[in-house]
Amino acid sequence: MSNRETGGSRPQRADARTNRERILNVAEEVFGKGGESASTEEVARLANVGIATVFRHFPTKAALLEAVLVKRFDRLREQAEALLHATDPGAAFFGFFSHLVADAAGKIAIAEALLEAGGDHDGDAARASDGLRQAVGALLQHAQRADAVRSDVELPEVYALLVATSRAAAHARLEKEVRDRMLAIVFDGLAPAKGP
Amino acid sequence: MSNRETGGSRPQRADARTNRERILNVAEEVFGKGGESASTEEVARLANVGIATVFRHFPTKAALLEAVLVKRFDRLREQAEALLHATDPGAAFFGFFSHLVADAAGKIAIAEALLEAGGDHDGDAARASDGLRQAVGALLQHAQRADAVRSDVELPEVYALLVATSRAAAHARLEKEVRDRMLAIVFDGLAPAKGP
Repeated sequence: MSNRETGGSRPQRADARTNRERILNVAEEVFGKGGESASTEEVARLANVGIATVFRHFPTKAALLEAVLVKRFDRLREQAEALLHATDPGAAFFGFFSHLVADAAGKIAIAEALLEAGGDHDGDAARASDGLRQAVGALLQHAQRADAVRSDVELPEVYALLVATSRAAAHARLEKEVRDRMLAIVFDGLAPAKGP
Repeated sequence: MSNRETGGSRPQRADARTNRERILNVAEEVFGKGGESASTEEVARLANVGIATVFRHFPTKAALLEAVLVKRFDRLREQAEALLHATDPGAAFFGFFSHLVADAAGKIAIAEALLEAGGDHDGDAARASDGLRQAVGALLQHAQRADAVRSDVELPEVYALLVATSRAAAHARLEKEVRDRMLAIVFDGLAPAKGP
């Protein structure tokens, strides 16, 4: 056992928090890449802790994956909320849309690993995902008020397009250039009608 | 054994063709719905033939699923090619795009069943899929020449959007209204720039 795991009670609590964070960060990277080698054992190895420590923090693989997804959704939601104060709401909305699509591959790999591990659809990750959706809705409204997005589109179809292009970018391993050209078509469709 | 399977040699050949067609049609329906009950046994039962007859025509489940996909892609390609003679190339292109998205759920369920059954990515279905892609490319060019689609978009990003919106419509079980509003945004993005 390492020193970390045998220290006194106060350092132990601090170390436990540090361990938890490190495990989460490593798990996000390992499961975000997907593939055969993505396992709880690999996470323990790269986080430099025993497998027992991983399971003390996250009793099941599904619990670990759910915590990773929650962390990722929460971080994206916070980024979206920060952009609500942007001086250019149109650039904020379209920029964040692109960011989400570029970020999608890892998130989808983690979500698929969670499903495989028997995670459920209605847990904390689903709530965190709803939080992100709401933040995107707020960004959309700001962009519409600034006349950067046409006023007659609503969140359901915009979010459907966001999910669609994210999945396309992640699954089809689109070249960045094709992805950007695909998003350019969508963004043009979202722009207010030009001309008289 | 039924009469069909014990008839003389000429009727037998004719019946064999009929059986093959009926098995394919039933399999398209059964596997297109997906779900737990989708099996070769279910296909045999609904096609009113013995399981041995199914396997005589299609030695493996993967072979059956691949034949179903080829049939479906070929039919869609033929529909696209027929539309190359349409008097309104813009309506033909956008109408066929919508048709493919509406048709996607069954196709994706069959393709996923094929992957699960160990089918490969480079077989006849992949070639048939390429044929459909080429036909869509021809429809796109016609629509561009008729100035119904902006001239600066190319097939890779248009096909990426087609696949993306198809998957979104199939997986997220989008309401038809949201799907139509999503496609309206994409189609507006594909339209030639308005204004001066």
